[in-house]
Amino acid sequence: MPRRIGLRRLRLRLADLEYKFIMTKQTLTQLEQHELFLTRHIGPNAAQQQEMLSFVGAESLDDLTAQTVPGAIRLPQDLTIGDSCGEAEGIAYIRNIADKNKVFKSYIGMGYYGVQVPNVILRNVFENPGWYTAYTPYQPEIAQGRLEAILNFQQMSMDLTGLDLASASLLDEASAGAEAMALAKRVSKAKKANIFFVADDVFPQTLDVVQTRAECFGFEVVVGPAADAVNYELFGALFQYSNRHGQISDFTALFSELRAKNVVVTVAADLMALMLLKSPGAMGADVVFGSAQRFGVPMGYGGPHAAFFVARDEHKRSMPGRIIGVSKDTRGNMALRMAMQTREQHIRREKANSNICTAQILLANMASFYAVFHGPQGLKTIATRINRLADILAFGLKAKGLSLVNDAWFDTVSVKGADIGAIQARAIAAGINLRIDADGVFGISLDETTLRSDIADLFDAILGAGHGLDVAAIDAQLVAANSSSIPAALVRTDAVLTHPTFNRYQSETEMMRYIKRLENKDLALNHSMISLGSCTMKLNAAVEMLPVSWPEFANMHPFCPLDQAEGYTQLINELSEYLVKITGYDAVCIQPNSGAQGEYAGLLAIKKYHESRGDAHRDICLIPQSAHGTNPASAQLAGMKVVVTACDKQGNVDLDDLRAKASELADSLSCIMITYPSTHGVYEESIREVCDIVHQYGGQVYLDGANMNAQVGLTSPGFIGADVSHLNLHKTFAIPHGGGGPGMGPIGVKSHLAPFVAGHTVVKPGRESDHNGAVSAAPYGSASILPISWMYIKLLGTKGIKQSTQTALLNANYVMKKLSAHYPVLFTGRNDRVAHECIIDLRPLKEASGVTEMDIAKRLNDYGFHAPTMSFPVAGTLMIEPTESESKVELDRFIEAMVSIRGEIAKVESGEWPVDNNPLHNAPHTMADIMDPEFDSRPYSREVAVFPSAAVKANKFWPTVNRIDDVYGDRNLMCSCVPLSDYE
Amino acid sequence: MPRRIGLRRLRLRLADLEYKFIMTKQTLTQLEQHELFLTRHIGPNAAQQQEMLSFVGAESLDDLTAQTVPGAIRLPQDLTIGDSCGEAEGIAYIRNIADKNKVFKSYIGMGYYGVQVPNVILRNVFENPGWYTAYTPYQPEIAQGRLEAILNFQQMSMDLTGLDLASASLLDEASAGAEAMALAKRVSKAKKANIFFVADDVFPQTLDVVQTRAECFGFEVVVGPAADAVNYELFGALFQYSNRHGQISDFTALFSELRAKNVVVTVAADLMALMLLKSPGAMGADVVFGSAQRFGVPMGYGGPHAAFFVARDEHKRSMPGRIIGVSKDTRGNMALRMAMQTREQHIRREKANSNICTAQILLANMASFYAVFHGPQGLKTIATRINRLADILAFGLKAKGLSLVNDAWFDTVSVKGADIGAIQARAIAAGINLRIDADGVFGISLDETTLRSDIADLFDAILGAGHGLDVAAIDAQLVAANSSSIPAALVRTDAVLTHPTFNRYQSETEMMRYIKRLENKDLALNHSMISLGSCTMKLNAAVEMLPVSWPEFANMHPFCPLDQAEGYTQLINELSEYLVKITGYDAVCIQPNSGAQGEYAGLLAIKKYHESRGDAHRDICLIPQSAHGTNPASAQLAGMKVVVTACDKQGNVDLDDLRAKASELADSLSCIMITYPSTHGVYEESIREVCDIVHQYGGQVYLDGANMNAQVGLTSPGFIGADVSHLNLHKTFAIPHGGGGPGMGPIGVKSHLAPFVAGHTVVKPGRESDHNGAVSAAPYGSASILPISWMYIKLLGTKGIKQSTQTALLNANYVMKKLSAHYPVLFTGRNDRVAHECIIDLRPLKEASGVTEMDIAKRLNDYGFHAPTMSFPVAGTLMIEPTESESKVELDRFIEAMVSIRGEIAKVESGEWPVDNNPLHNAPHTMADIMDPEFDSRPYSREVAVFPSAAVKANKFWPTVNRIDDVYGDRNLMCSCVPLSDYE
Repeated sequence: MPRRIGLRRLRLRLADLEYKFIMTKQTLTQLEQHELFLTRHIGPNAAQQQEMLSFVGAESLDDLTAQTVPGAIRLPQDLTIGDSCGEAEGIAYIRNIADKNKVFKSYIGMGYYGVQVPNVILRNVFENPGWYTAYTPYQPEIAQGRLEAILNFQQMSMDLTGLDLASASLLDEASAGAEAMALAKRVSKAKKANIFFVADDVFPQTLDVVQTRAECFGFEVVVGPAADAVNYELFGALFQYSNRHGQISDFTALFSELRAKNVVVTVAADLMALMLLKSPGAMGADVVFGSAQRFGVPMGYGGPHAAFFVARDEHKRSMPGRIIGVSKDTRGNMALRMAMQTREQHIRREKANSNICTAQILLANMASFYAVFHGPQGLKTIATRINRLADILAFGLKAKGLSLVNDAWFDTVSVKGADIGAIQARAIAAGINLRIDADGVFGISLDETTLRSDIADLFDAILGAGHGLDVAAIDAQLVAANSSSIPAALVRTDAVLTHPTFNRYQSETEMMRYIKRLENKDLALNHSMISLGSCTMKLNAAVEMLPVSWPEFANMHPFCPLDQAEGYTQLINELSEYLVKITGYDAVCIQPNSGAQGEYAGLLAIKKYHESRGDAHRDICLIPQSAHGTNPASAQLAGMKVVVTACDKQGNVDLDDLRAKASELADSLSCIMITYPSTHGVYEESIREVCDIVHQYGGQVYLDGANMNAQVGLTSPGFIGADVSHLNLHKTFAIPHGGGGPGMGPIGVKSHLAPFVAGHTVVKPGRESDHNGAVSAAPYGSASILPISWMYIKLLGTKGIKQSTQTALLNANYVMKKLSAHYPVLFTGRNDRVAHECIIDLRPLKEASGVTEMDIAKRLNDYGFHAPTMSFPVAGTLMIEPTESESKVELDRFIEAMVSIRGEIAKVESGEWPVDNNPLHNAPHTMADIMDPEFDSRPYSREVAVFPSAAVKANKFWPTVNRIDDVYGDRNLMCSCVPLSDYE
Repeated sequence: MPRRIGLRRLRLRLADLEYKFIMTKQTLTQLEQHELFLTRHIGPNAAQQQEMLSFVGAESLDDLTAQTVPGAIRLPQDLTIGDSCGEAEGIAYIRNIADKNKVFKSYIGMGYYGVQVPNVILRNVFENPGWYTAYTPYQPEIAQGRLEAILNFQQMSMDLTGLDLASASLLDEASAGAEAMALAKRVSKAKKANIFFVADDVFPQTLDVVQTRAECFGFEVVVGPAADAVNYELFGALFQYSNRHGQISDFTALFSELRAKNVVVTVAADLMALMLLKSPGAMGADVVFGSAQRFGVPMGYGGPHAAFFVARDEHKRSMPGRIIGVSKDTRGNMALRMAMQTREQHIRREKANSNICTAQILLANMASFYAVFHGPQGLKTIATRINRLADILAFGLKAKGLSLVNDAWFDTVSVKGADIGAIQARAIAAGINLRIDADGVFGISLDETTLRSDIADLFDAILGAGHGLDVAAIDAQLVAANSSSIPAALVRTDAVLTHPTFNRYQSETEMMRYIKRLENKDLALNHSMISLGSCTMKLNAAVEMLPVSWPEFANMHPFCPLDQAEGYTQLINELSEYLVKITGYDAVCIQPNSGAQGEYAGLLAIKKYHESRGDAHRDICLIPQSAHGTNPASAQLAGMKVVVTACDKQGNVDLDDLRAKASELADSLSCIMITYPSTHGVYEESIREVCDIVHQYGGQVYLDGANMNAQVGLTSPGFIGADVSHLNLHKTFAIPHGGGGPGMGPIGVKSHLAPFVAGHTVVKPGRESDHNGAVSAAPYGSASILPISWMYIKLLGTKGIKQSTQTALLNANYVMKKLSAHYPVLFTGRNDRVAHECIIDLRPLKEASGVTEMDIAKRLNDYGFHAPTMSFPVAGTLMIEPTESESKVELDRFIEAMVSIRGEIAKVESGEWPVDNNPLHNAPHTMADIMDPEFDSRPYSREVAVFPSAAVKANKFWPTVNRIDDVYGDRNLMCSCVPLSDYE
C-alpha cells in the first residue's frame, strides 16, 4: 500500500513537473511558432538533421557550411531579409498587397485578353500539384500524361494555323517572333539577304523584342506597311493577323509574291480569331506563332502563357524549342516523347537553334484542355460571340459618327479622330481600360468575358450618356442583314479540331476523368523525390501557390495604367529588394521569363555596357568546358563568339588556361559565363581569382544562377565578385516546374550594368533602363507567379533561407557519403564535401557490366523514382540534387533503391543475369510486362521486376509504357495526335 | 482548267454559305450559350441522347417521361426556377451574396472556433475531387486510403479522450450528445431509471438537441448543477469539460460516485483542450464526445464538421454510427473496413442503435490530417498558446477589476457584472463578436487564429481606451511566476498521439505525399462511374464547389448576429424557395444535416402536429417492406412504433394490406413512410391512392426524398399528396458524398406542418417554429455546403433540372434495356420502364453457378468500377443508378463490363472454371496476386484477372487489398491504428 501511494505521488510530481515545463516556461513568442513554416519547407526535422550531421561528420549546419564553403566567399554576416513568418501572416500580408491592384475591365487587347478559365481545369490542373510539380518530360515513360496533353496542344496549334509542325510551346508571343526571325534566317534560301521586314502594324512589344534580337544577330529590321515588304531584299518578313488595330487582311497574294523571292513568311496570329478566319497556312505562311493565353489562361499581368509556334514541315529540323513526337516502346506500343532533342541547346550548345530550355508546358496544357473541353463547336460559338459583340460595338460607334481605323475585324475595333481625353476620363471613371495609342487612336478589344452589358457600358463611356443605342436592337438588325465584319474571302471553311480528343470530353465528368487519367500517368513531386541535379526540385508549398489564383493577381492586363497596379508594383519592388540582398547585386530586372531568357538579358546588358564605353568590339565569351549547354547557346544569341576554356580533372576551371585565353583575347574579351557552385557540384576555391582574371582583362563576369540554391544566405554572386547573374525562380525560389514551365529568370546586376537591363516599349515606370529594348513581351515577364517566390522568401525569412541552403548541403553530402560506399563520386571539393548536388560515376560499372546510365535511370522508375540528371555535365554519370525539402526518410528510400540497383548490377557483372536480359536492361517494367505469359522466361521474377523493395510495394508507381525508342521516333517524325485506334 | 475554276468557285460558294450560316444567322442570345452548364452537367450529348432514346424506343425525353411517369402525378407545367445561367454568371451572383456576409473576429466559442486550415490539406483534400467525390467505403478493397485516414481519426479520438473505442464520426456535437444519452439507456444497468441528467453548464444547443430526443424516447431530462447529479436515480448523465463558461473541473470523484450507482457518465469535451487537460477517460467517463471542428475545419456558419464519439470497450456493440476496424484479406494482409455493420440501421432497421447513415467522413479526414500534420508537439504548442493568451486576457481583465465567472479554464473566460451594453457596442464597432449570455455574463473564447494583437484589441473593446495593459509585459509576468490557469490536477501527463503516423509527416512534402498515397488507393468519381442505386452519385461540378472555400462562407460563426449573416440569410432563403418549388411543399427547414436527421426531423413535425390536435396517442408509423432501413430506425428514434405493410411481387405497396392496417390502426395511426419512386426503382401507379388511404385514417404521409432525382421537374411530393419529405442535398442536389459525408437533409412540409419543424435555442430569426426543439447543433445544419446546391439549381435553371431528371431516366432505362439481355431485371413499371435506377436479379445465376452478388461486386472492381448497391432492397440483387451525369461512353463501358462478367459466370456454370477458383470468386485482384508465382496454377491468366477489357488496360485502377474478411474483423475487433510493422 505505501508503495502505491509513493507511485501516485511520483506521478503527481511528474505531472507537476511537466505542467510547469510545458505550460509555464515557454514565452508567448516561443509559442507563436513564427518559424513553423521553416520546418514545413525543410524536409529533415531537427533530430534527423542531427543524425545526418553526425553521419557526415559535422557538428552542426554551421560547421558543415564552414567545412564546405570556401572561407573567402562566405558572407561575414547574415542577410537582413526579415523574420520568418507563419502561413496565415504571409497570406494576410500578400492579401493586402493584392487588394492594392484595381481590376478594371480590360479592352486593351494587344495580345492579352480576359478569359474564363473553365473551373474543371482551374481546380484539376492549375491548382493540382499532380500537374504543376512535375518536371520537363525527360523521362517519358513516366510522363505520358502531360506528353499527351502537349501533343493535343501541338495538334490544336497545327489545326488552327493551317501548318504542319508545332512546337510544345515557347515563352511568349514576342520572343516567338524573334525565334521566327531566327528560323527564317536559318532556312531562307535568300542566303545573302540580311534584312528582316516587320509590318508596322504588329504589336509594339513584338517589334521591340524582335529588334532587340535582330541587333544581336546583326540583322537589319525594316518596319513599314505590309505591302512594302516586296520592295526589299529580305530573308524573312513578319506580319500580324489581325493587326494592332484589329484589321484583318487577306495576305495570300502578298505571301505568294514574297515566297517566290525566297522570303520566309512569318505571321503572328490569334488563336481565337483563327476559329473563324482563313488560316495563315492557307495563305501561304511558313511560320505562324502567337499567344495561346486567351485559351483559358488568365492575363496575370503579363504571364505566364504559352506561345504556339508552327511551321511548314520542311522547316522541322530548324524549329526552336521542344517538340513532342510519337514513337514506340520496346513492346511496339505507341509512346510519346520529346522529339529531335539533338537540335536542342543541351546538346548542340552554341550551334543550337535557340537557347530555349524551360517552356510553358503547364500553360500549354491548360490551353489544350480548354480546347478539348469546348471542342470545335464550342470554340466557334465563343469566337462568333466575340465577333458579334465587336460588330455591334462598331455599328453603334459608326452610327454615332465615329470613324473606325479598320474596316474588317475579329474582336478589335480602333477609332480615330475622337476626343480621347474625355472618353478616357469617362472610361476610367467607369472602371474600363481602353487601348490608347500614341497617334490619337484608341481601340477596344473584346474577349470571351465581354457581356452585352459591357457593350452598353462601352457605349456610355465612349459616347457619353444619352446615345440611345440598344445592343439587342443592333444585334437584331445585324442578323436580319446577314451582316458580318469578316469578309467572305477570310472566312474559315476547313474543319478544325476534328480529332476525337477534341470531340469527346464536353461533359465535365468526362473532362475531369480525362485530366485525372493523364495525371495518373505522370510522376510528380507529390509522389516522390525528383533529385534532378541542377534543377532544384524543392517543395512548392500550397500556401505559396494560393495567391496565384486570386483575381487581383490573375486578371490584370500587363499594360494597364500603373496606378491600377500598385499591388504588383509593391510586390515586384519587395521581391526585387529581397533578390538584391540575396544576390549581393545592386539592381534586379524582373523581365526575363525563363533562365535562358535571363542569360540572354544578362549578356545583352554586358554587351551594351561595353558599347557604352566604346568597346563594341568586345564580343568574346569565355565558357568553361563544364558549362550548361544553355550558356553557349545564349552567348550565340547575344551575338558573342564562344571560346571554351579548359577544366582540370577535378572539374575546376583551369586557371592557367583561363589566364592565357583572357590575356590572348584581352582586346575582344566581353565576358566569362561561369556557374557557381560549378556544374560539378563543388564550390571551386578559385572563383574569386576567376573573377579577378576576367576583370583584369576588361571582361565582365556572368555568374549563372542555376546553382543559386547552394549560395542563398551563405555567399552571393555579388560578394564573390561577379557582375551579373540570372536567378531561376523556378529552381531556387519555389516556383513549380509545371511539367516543363513556367519559369522566371530575373537578372541581378552590379550598378554599372543597371542602365543596360531590359526595358519595355509600352510600360515605362521611369527607370534609367526604360529606353532599352525588351527581351520578353511583358514588362515583368510572368508576373503572376512572382507571388510564389515572394511568399517563399517572406515566410522563410533570413533564418529560413539560410537554413534551407545549409540543409540542401547536408542532404547532398548525406546522399553522397551514403552512396560513395557503392558508387564512385566524381567530384568533391574541400574536405571532400560536395555542394548541393553530387555526381556519381557510372562509367566504370558500365565497362564492367554493360549496364548503362540509361538502364539505371529507367530502373529507378521501377523503384518509384524519377531519375537524377543523366550524363550532365559528364557523360555516363548521374547528378543528384536532393534539395532541402526531402526528409531523411525519403533520402534513405532513394539510397536504398540505388544500393539495391548496385546489387542488381553486381548480378549482371557476375553473369548471374545476362547483359541483355535483366531488370536493368528491361526497365522500366510496365503492367503489360507483368501480364505477359512470356515473362516467365526471364531470369528474374515479376516481384523483382516491379516490387524490388518493400517501400515500392507500399506505394507503387507504374510507368505506362516500356522504354521508348527515340531514334525510331525521330526517323518517323509524327508530332500530331495519333488516330485513336492506336491508343486502344 | 475550267474544271478547276469551277471547283474553286464552288469552294468559295461553300465558304460563303457556311459563313452566312455560322456567322450571321445566330442571335447574340444564342451565341451567349446560357445553357452551356446544362451540357456540362448532363453526360450524354444531344446526339448520344438521340441514339439512346432510339434504342429504348422513345421519340424524345418528353416521350420517355410520358411513357414512364404516371400521368396522374406529372406536373401540368414546368417549374419556375429561372433561366439556366453560365458558370461565370453564377459565380458573380453568389460572389455578391457572399459579400453580404460580414466576417467578424469571433470569440463566441460555444463549440465553434476559428481555425487555420493547413493549406496542404485545404488544397489536397478539401479542394480535391479525389477525396470529396468518393462514396462511403462500403467497398473497402477500393477505399483503403480514406479508411486509413478515418482510422487515424479514431486513434486520435481515443488518445485524446482517454477511452477505448471511437466512432468514425457523428454529425455534430449536439446530436452526438443525444446519441450518448441513447447509448447510456441501452447499456446502463440501472434498468428502471428513466432520468438523464444534464449539467446546467453544457452548451445550450447540446441541451436543446438532447431534450428533443429525450422527449421522443420518453426520458425525463433533469438539468442542474453538475454536483446535483448524485441526487437522482439516473441511467445516465452528461457533463461538459470545459463548460459553457470555460470552467474546467476535476470530475473524478463525481464520476466514480455516479458509476457506482450504475449511471453511465457521458462527457462533452473539446479536442484542443484535451491536448493539455487530464482526459475524461482518466476521470472515469463512459462516453466522451464533441466536435473535431477546431482541428482544421472552418466554422462554416455551423458545419459541416465531424463529431467524435468514444466509449469504453465494454460498450462497443452499442456504439452509434460507423466504426472502422482492422481485419485481414484473403492473403492474410491487414485490411481496413467498416466494422460491426450488423449494428447499423440498414440491417437492424428499427432495432438499430441509431438511424445514422451519412456521417462526416471528409471532415473527420481533415481533422485527422490536421493532427497528423501538426503532430503531438505541434498540437500541444498550439493549445498552450491559446491557453496562454486566455491567461493574459484574464490577467488583464482581473487587473482592471472585472470579475470572472470561472477560476480555471483552457481557452474561455467569462465575465460577470460588467457594463455589457457599452462593451458590446465597442466590440461590434471593432469587428469583434463576444459571447453574450442571457444572464448578464459575457465570454471570450480564443482559438488558434488569435494573435497577441487580438488580445490588445479585446482589451480595448472590453475596457475602453487607456487601459494601459501590455500583452508582452503580462506574458513575461506570467512566465516569471510559473502561472497557469490549469490546476495541476487537471494537467495531462500521459503521452498522446504516439503512433508513428502522427510523428512522421511534419514536413509539407511528406504530408502532401501521404495524402496522395492514400488518395491513390481510393476509387472516386474522378476515375469512373459509381452507379450506386439510391445514392445518386452525380457530378459535383468544380464551379459548385468553389464558393465553399471562400472566407465569407467558411469563416462565419453560426451564432453571430444575424445582421452580419445577410449573405447566408439570402442564400438560405433563395435555396429554400427553390426547394419549395421543386418539392411542391409550402415551407422548407434547412436544419437537418443528413438524410437520417431529416427523417427524424420530419417525423418530429408529424408527431408535434398530432400533439397540437390532441392526438398525442397517434404513434404508429406504417412502413412498406421495401423501405430504406433508415426509415424504421428513424421512426423508432421519433418514438413511433413501426408496423410493416406488405408489398406485392412487383415490389409495389399492397394497397389491400395497407388499407387493412390503416383501418385497423386508425386511432393510433401517425403516418406512413414511403419512398417514391419506390426503392424498387419504379414509379408506383398507386402512390396517390396510398396518400389518400393514409390521410383517410388520419395519418400523415412522409415521403422519403432519397429518390428525388427521379422527381425534380417532373412531379413532386407535394403534388403527389405527401405532407413532408427530406431531401438529400448530397444525392439530388450535387453536394459531394465526401467519402461518407457530409450530407444535408432539409425537410419540406405542407403548411399545416410548418409550425412544427425544428427550431433553435440560440438563433431565432423570428419564425413560427423558432420555439421548437432542435435536431442539429447549428440552426442551418451544415450551412457552408449549401452554396453547392444553390449553384446547382441556379446554373441549371428550370430547363436544366428537368432535363437532368429526364436524362437520369434515359440513362437508367438504357442500362436496364442493355443489361436485360444478360440479366433478369427484377422490377419495371408502366411500359416496362424503370425510373432512375434498376435492379438486376442475381439469384438465379447464383443458384446455377454458385457465383454470388458479392463476387460480381468485387469483380467489377477489377473492371475499374465501384459496385452498384448490393442486396438492397432485395437480397441477391444489384441496384444500378447511373444518374444523368454519366455519358453514353461510360454507360457502355459499364455495360460491357457487366456483359463480360456474365460471360465469366457462364464459364463457371459450364464448369470450365471451378466454382471456388475463378476470376469472380477471387476478385478483386491485386498487384500481389499478379506478382505471385503461384498465380500460374489458376485456371485463368493474369491478363484475364486484371485486364479483362481494353478499356481497363487504358485506365487501370488497382484494388490495394484482396477480398476482406468481415467476420474475422468483427470477431477480433481492432479499431485503432495498427503497429507500423503490420503495414510493411
